[in-house]
Amino acid sequence: MTSVTPPARPRIVIIGCGFGGLEAARALRSAPVDVTVVDRTNHHLFQPLLYQVATAGLSAPAIAAPIRHLFRRQANATVLLGEVVRIDVQARAVHLKDGLALPYDHLIVAAGAAHSYFGNDQWAPYAPGLKTLDDAFDIRGRILLAFEAAEKEPEPQRRADWLTFVVIGGGPTGVEMAGTLAEIARHTLPGEFRNIDPATARVILLEGSDRVMQSMPPTLSQRAQEQLEKLGVDVRVNARVTAIDEDGLTVQKPAAGLPPGETRAADSYRIRSKCIIWGAGVAASPLGRQLAESTGATVDRAGRVVVEPDLSLASQPEISVIGDLAAAKSHTPGQEPLPVPGVSPAAKQMGRAAAANILRRIAGQETAAFRYRDYGNLATIGRNSAVVDLASPLGPVRFSGYFAWLFWLFAHVFFLIGFRNRVVVLMDWAWAYWTFARQARVVTGLASTPVQAGASASEVAAAEAAHKGPAA
Amino acid sequence: MTSVTPPARPRIVIIGCGFGGLEAARALRSAPVDVTVVDRTNHHLFQPLLYQVATAGLSAPAIAAPIRHLFRRQANATVLLGEVVRIDVQARAVHLKDGLALPYDHLIVAAGAAHSYFGNDQWAPYAPGLKTLDDAFDIRGRILLAFEAAEKEPEPQRRADWLTFVVIGGGPTGVEMAGTLAEIARHTLPGEFRNIDPATARVILLEGSDRVMQSMPPTLSQRAQEQLEKLGVDVRVNARVTAIDEDGLTVQKPAAGLPPGETRAADSYRIRSKCIIWGAGVAASPLGRQLAESTGATVDRAGRVVVEPDLSLASQPEISVIGDLAAAKSHTPGQEPLPVPGVSPAAKQMGRAAAANILRRIAGQETAAFRYRDYGNLATIGRNSAVVDLASPLGPVRFSGYFAWLFWLFAHVFFLIGFRNRVVVLMDWAWAYWTFARQARVVTGLASTPVQAGASASEVAAAEAAHKGPAA
Repeated sequence: MTSVTPPARPRIVIIGCGFGGLEAARALRSAPVDVTVVDRTNHHLFQPLLYQVATAGLSAPAIAAPIRHLFRRQANATVLLGEVVRIDVQARAVHLKDGLALPYDHLIVAAGAAHSYFGNDQWAPYAPGLKTLDDAFDIRGRILLAFEAAEKEPEPQRRADWLTFVVIGGGPTGVEMAGTLAEIARHTLPGEFRNIDPATARVILLEGSDRVMQSMPPTLSQRAQEQLEKLGVDVRVNARVTAIDEDGLTVQKPAAGLPPGETRAADSYRIRSKCIIWGAGVAASPLGRQLAESTGATVDRAGRVVVEPDLSLASQPEISVIGDLAAAKSHTPGQEPLPVPGVSPAAKQMGRAAAANILRRIAGQETAAFRYRDYGNLATIGRNSAVVDLASPLGPVRFSGYFAWLFWLFAHVFFLIGFRNRVVVLMDWAWAYWTFARQARVVTGLASTPVQAGASASEVAAAEAAHKGPAA
Repeated sequence: MTSVTPPARPRIVIIGCGFGGLEAARALRSAPVDVTVVDRTNHHLFQPLLYQVATAGLSAPAIAAPIRHLFRRQANATVLLGEVVRIDVQARAVHLKDGLALPYDHLIVAAGAAHSYFGNDQWAPYAPGLKTLDDAFDIRGRILLAFEAAEKEPEPQRRADWLTFVVIGGGPTGVEMAGTLAEIARHTLPGEFRNIDPATARVILLEGSDRVMQSMPPTLSQRAQEQLEKLGVDVRVNARVTAIDEDGLTVQKPAAGLPPGETRAADSYRIRSKCIIWGAGVAASPLGRQLAESTGATVDRAGRVVVEPDLSLASQPEISVIGDLAAAKSHTPGQEPLPVPGVSPAAKQMGRAAAANILRRIAGQETAAFRYRDYGNLATIGRNSAVVDLASPLGPVRFSGYFAWLFWLFAHVFFLIGFRNRVVVLMDWAWAYWTFARQARVVTGLASTPVQAGASASEVAAAEAAHKGPAA
């Protein structure tokens, strides 16, 4: 009898379980490889609906699926909760904060991006961004507590400050936040306050360029702005924020005709506000720069790693970078390569492409250049409004308004991870649609901690007895 | 023409919007009075299901209703978010932390209780209690992260420490937590880990007295213990905790036959555990002692204010104390007064009684003594198990097992505040029942904050451009 040692299966480590990492791991499900997925949270987040958690429309579990649960039936996948602190390119190992090292044969880095203040980190405490569930809870609390503070504030100017909401950045997140805020003020809260009228709240959307929704064609930008204005949002383009503090912000280039409460100083003006939301920018994970330093790869100025056509690194073909962390190009035969946009369908496609290229490499085959298929672009603005820009073989299909909103709704629910989440989200929305109620108006972090006992030993015994012997 | 000043309406302030405060305010809905409800959170919490949030079965919004929303149609009620720091009995005003003072003609104090370590506050970091949503999130995180840590831990003893869960206190909270923890370990998580078998996790319930569920008759305590043991819970009665630290706890009076990993020292033993939950005791809000000092009322040793038969204070009949903060007696004609238990039906009944007595006082009528109607007592132990002890005119009706569980389920869903919550909770449970999945396995506080920009001004501009002009 001879004992046969089976050949070692290639170890593939995937850093990050956003859209890119999740798709990459799934694409490897039937391959004879060992996959390890590392993420610093325990859940995959359906980011396109994060603004609904921030605006109290959905609960966190409705848009977050436990990563471990998603992979329970994928026998070749191991899920680890951990924060990656370093990639040792020479030793081929990923080092976690808690000291664990994960050796790899192939590595997919899908660590994504976070919001960024582009050198103005001092703005962070006054204008939270929206990337994680913690961010969403923070913003939800600020919005709801601003109305609560206004209800208690007798001084008219300060009350107006609490009722002025400013969203910075006219991209999808900013547009969705501003539209939903206006809806909350005009439809959800009225009737619930006795000292203020929530419908008098002002929602201001500031965009630095000349139109909102820059990633869409100008006609749809125009529609989006009109729909926002119909909802009562004060949309200001060509408005660059130069300072943010706890009482408001300063904007360059005044819009014509200043509303009361704003003061002009040379060519800038102030908006007084106690609730400012940052939707203006993202920057790639710091892991990109670390990786570039140790591999000789280039990063672009947003911190994204420039990758080869097959999404790998030139000096380290066993490493692929995908999603928001990658500065990738789409390669269509006979055409100039085009930059891949930072959207979730692109991240998913890169995940599948990187996984396929790794399997090709293992099989000794040529890798394939990545080609991004653009199926279109959609964004919602509030109840009943959205803009849709679909790619089709016959040319772009563009529409806006109610049917765009229905299209947006079903597209998002369709892509939401997990059967149960879809049902719950649809139910929550159906309910919210007919009642204007928002289900998740819960603010935590307010109630304080246990009763500090200054009790003596006999008091302790008696207190225990008074509560019928629960003490152990 | 003469101008007529309408007579001022009596101002009634209610501190706390738990079961007692909520019922009191609702009972005043048609009365010609002005009601102000103050609570330090923005939501009414359905506390009997809080353990489901702690064990990831329900999302927070499913059991928390915004107080403001509950009173939107009660025109005579104003809701304020605020923490009461002082009651000025002489000036008849309630002072909030933010400086606001609320004058009252009648005051209902329903500030409730928090969990208490009875003089061992140093245990708090290692054994969180369960009273607020924040507590529930804390416990949820500890439970889920313990399994995550075990999956990453190569050393067997430390891995076993992560997989040992100890619940202190055999009252309803402790029994529900222990039963659900066992269910999670045996049914929800298996198949999702590669390095550990979650079903090997130990769940230990420690009770200081000689039986669990002291508030139930001994036969049902026995049933509860049997059902817990069937679920795999190691139930230890007569087990008093004498020390808790980050590696485990010390228990007095050893149970016979020590499992491995526990060391006997004289008449105490150690249990090594990285996840300990405190369900052992509560103490009344500190507002009780403050109130007693300024009114001459007595507090019992649990910090509860001793009230008159009509729930008011002897020296200040315009102040009533209800719910967990009151040491009240039930008055049945021809019988000895009996202490009112600290359960939610009692709090609700006290709320209605206090409101009715205030209206009688305003009308110049005699107030009525409070009489508690005990409809029974129920507790669930896990999937399919519960114990029910109902009061009926023909004597007590006691049952346990599957039908008790169904009874418990529908009773709780029926009493849950708000139509939508009931539907969602039933759906979540139906889904969880058939799949053993738990919907709310989300841990927050793990992902870190924005990318700290060390970028230069030109990099900033370029980064903005790279993300298609969102900057403002």
